[in-house]
Amino acid sequence: MSKTRDGNHYVVDTKTLSTGLSSLGALAAKSTSSDSLFQQYDVVVIGAGYCGLVAARDLSITGKKVLLIEGRDRIGGRTFTYDFLQHKVELGGTWIHWGQPNLWSEISRYGLEQSLAESKVFSEPCEVSINFNDSDNSRPVLRDVQTMKSTMQRLIAAYFDVDGQGGRTIFPLPYAKMSNISAVRKYDNLSVGARLQQLVGFTQQEMTLLTANLTAFGSVPPAEQSFLTTLHYYALAGYDYDRLMSMIGRYKLAAGQSDLAARILGEYTGHAIFGKRVEAVNNHGGVVQVALASGDNITARQLICTVPVNCLSDIKFTPPLPPQFTKVKHPNFGGKIILHLDKRIPSWWGLVASPTPVDSLLTDKYSKRNGTFVVGFPPGCNPASNFRVVQDPETFLDHVQRLGVPPSWEARPTDLIWHDWNTDEFSKGQWASWGTGQFGSLKSLMEGANVSKEITLASADWADGWTGFIDGAIAQGRKSALRALSRLDSYKL
Amino acid sequence: MSKTRDGNHYVVDTKTLSTGLSSLGALAAKSTSSDSLFQQYDVVVIGAGYCGLVAARDLSITGKKVLLIEGRDRIGGRTFTYDFLQHKVELGGTWIHWGQPNLWSEISRYGLEQSLAESKVFSEPCEVSINFNDSDNSRPVLRDVQTMKSTMQRLIAAYFDVDGQGGRTIFPLPYAKMSNISAVRKYDNLSVGARLQQLVGFTQQEMTLLTANLTAFGSVPPAEQSFLTTLHYYALAGYDYDRLMSMIGRYKLAAGQSDLAARILGEYTGHAIFGKRVEAVNNHGGVVQVALASGDNITARQLICTVPVNCLSDIKFTPPLPPQFTKVKHPNFGGKIILHLDKRIPSWWGLVASPTPVDSLLTDKYSKRNGTFVVGFPPGCNPASNFRVVQDPETFLDHVQRLGVPPSWEARPTDLIWHDWNTDEFSKGQWASWGTGQFGSLKSLMEGANVSKEITLASADWADGWTGFIDGAIAQGRKSALRALSRLDSYKL
Repeated sequence: MSKTRDGNHYVVDTKTLSTGLSSLGALAAKSTSSDSLFQQYDVVVIGAGYCGLVAARDLSITGKKVLLIEGRDRIGGRTFTYDFLQHKVELGGTWIHWGQPNLWSEISRYGLEQSLAESKVFSEPCEVSINFNDSDNSRPVLRDVQTMKSTMQRLIAAYFDVDGQGGRTIFPLPYAKMSNISAVRKYDNLSVGARLQQLVGFTQQEMTLLTANLTAFGSVPPAEQSFLTTLHYYALAGYDYDRLMSMIGRYKLAAGQSDLAARILGEYTGHAIFGKRVEAVNNHGGVVQVALASGDNITARQLICTVPVNCLSDIKFTPPLPPQFTKVKHPNFGGKIILHLDKRIPSWWGLVASPTPVDSLLTDKYSKRNGTFVVGFPPGCNPASNFRVVQDPETFLDHVQRLGVPPSWEARPTDLIWHDWNTDEFSKGQWASWGTGQFGSLKSLMEGANVSKEITLASADWADGWTGFIDGAIAQGRKSALRALSRLDSYKL
Repeated sequence: MSKTRDGNHYVVDTKTLSTGLSSLGALAAKSTSSDSLFQQYDVVVIGAGYCGLVAARDLSITGKKVLLIEGRDRIGGRTFTYDFLQHKVELGGTWIHWGQPNLWSEISRYGLEQSLAESKVFSEPCEVSINFNDSDNSRPVLRDVQTMKSTMQRLIAAYFDVDGQGGRTIFPLPYAKMSNISAVRKYDNLSVGARLQQLVGFTQQEMTLLTANLTAFGSVPPAEQSFLTTLHYYALAGYDYDRLMSMIGRYKLAAGQSDLAARILGEYTGHAIFGKRVEAVNNHGGVVQVALASGDNITARQLICTVPVNCLSDIKFTPPLPPQFTKVKHPNFGGKIILHLDKRIPSWWGLVASPTPVDSLLTDKYSKRNGTFVVGFPPGCNPASNFRVVQDPETFLDHVQRLGVPPSWEARPTDLIWHDWNTDEFSKGQWASWGTGQFGSLKSLMEGANVSKEITLASADWADGWTGFIDGAIAQGRKSALRALSRLDSYKL
């Protein structure tokens, strides 16, 4: 299996850190030989995440001459899968559900409807621990699950009920989230933290529990996280908290995200360049010139750019992009870690109140080594001081174990696996989870993405529906391909 | 607007019946001139319902030579839209939801996410009437909605709880409904009626209420309807009754089903023949000959047949189809009517206990004439004595009004609109809603549909996921196109 330069694996026993993990996503990433490249393409697609892969596939199927350019040495963008102990370790986007329509129609396309795996935490009765972290000696304590569940249902219902109708008036059509734009504007400046402060009649511990839960919606601190972002996920799940957890934390692809990405690439018949960064895009009108950092130049009649919004300002567009695409950054600078513990622990959800190096821990799966894979989410903060476990994994693990893992289990970490999406030059953050005051401005991204006759911007970051999710990436990839096609052929939709 | 020969409109005032309604579905159905037809095609697709339209579009986009053959004079199969009083009257399949992934990805493709209309009954607080129909003078009585709702929740939960887990063990993956095949086999012979008889502790009136509700899942009498069919819909809706009603009875396409079908056809670049019936399909190995009733013969390297399962035995296949495709018929022989009442009545759901000409009535929308469109469902029975309102619409309307419409509203029907799907030679029934003892045998349809190297059968009737629904039709259309493509080009998925 080929290695990507992405991802880290720290082995506790030997105190060794390996950077760069083997992944099908790297194996699948084969560049076309430079002799074979054309001078001009019908369409150049920048970025081989799900959005770019789907756009490139859909275009090449029609017989268009397509070139896919990816700065990384692998496909999958903010998703990739590492094989460790015969387990598919997902370093980025992980969970899927048939209620995510664009994603599920791809799963249906490849006949993978039965090829799902389930994370233990949301597929079996689980233990819940909470560490209120209110003293130096505070430790995680196991709580009665039924009490926790009914408490959470009550808390969540109160939290979302800003309109006396459980929040239902704000996103009447969750796949057209700006359809009640006046409500969006009204709540746009409400942060998760400010909304929490409006709630009365709950204990401090209940509030801590709710706060820790809400960070699962996007690793953005409560003061920065948009209330609307959390409500929109809730609306997509039909205003049902259990269903939401089941949609965003239960089902995985048994063969991994990189397998699905490779299947999409497998249908692609165009050319590809991996490992080269796009430096500039010059639109000469009718023809677009793409300049690579390597000095190569390619031209195309249509360009689809699927670069994440946080990286768009790294490419010099002439004429410049509309300002909203280079000024706005989403604030999801949290992290994701995969721990391997040396024991089989129960199905479990561990919550830790801030300040903490990890605020949510989930039992994913048992390993062949009689251990347990646990997924954890380090909370986000500002990019200047974000997730930097790489500098001292031992101290990080000590903190995680002490604060997060119930001591009675006597489970010790043997391995720590992660990728730092925040320092990654091609993502500069995790999945887009928009902040306070930003939700309404998404409208200008959604409306401005067809920047010219020749150039289409496409990204899950501002997708309608499941914004920031794989579903949104696929929706945007399809739409951008159709737009490019319609421009090339005066094709009418 | 062009007329199809399908559909009936009876006007009470003038006692006139018009057969054949104007529809965009007919306007869009343009045959290629016979001079332009090829001798041989890459693919022939039989049937221009959603399944065939999607298959034909997906294939023609790749540049293949495709011929679409449809016996009707319109597109849309078991869906079509009639414009009356500026209202989009849906004669067949109507409601859609973003939780139906294959359908929703088409809606996303055409940018229709915001272009939805809502039926009043499930989008506003509604009145509920019930007629227990236990004496000659029994009339519909309005009930307290909140009491009804909580009663229904309790009844539905008891009805589905065959396994002590609310029915959740039987379809762990609702898009792979045979994944727990032993459970499917165990309950396959349980009818809705037999399951109802197992319930204890409910009043006769409560049982009547539940029975009338369950017929909304497919107009099949309780003794014939499969318990598993009802449970599978419930599983698809996440085991939430309100959500299920919202998924199957609330949202519609504002421009109508025929508009979506026409958009799919609008992308199709191949040839088409409308109004000619396929009589025989002869597979000579490597080339398939399609014989039309008109005497024309066409050959193709691949054939996709999207004819409904109830009509498959009307085409003579040589070699013959596997027996499951010609012996099995689904038992949904109910009907659908659209009433226009002369008054604006409240948002309302009316239930009538059997025997009745209509067991469920729903307020759809107010009309420009200050009236109300109401959708009604005549219950199914055996095909020999099925829905035949055409023979005496006056008597039918008298019964419906007396048994169904609360007398205090003093609302009179002015118009009755319907299509008889049971006598329709190209459907011979409504949407597939499988009967007692048939659910498990669906497996042999699902597994046998790739009948030879050259021939693929595709239909919502045995689709996984939303069997019988538009979502299932689209899923099957896509998959069949990919299969034909893979056979033509040794294309690897």
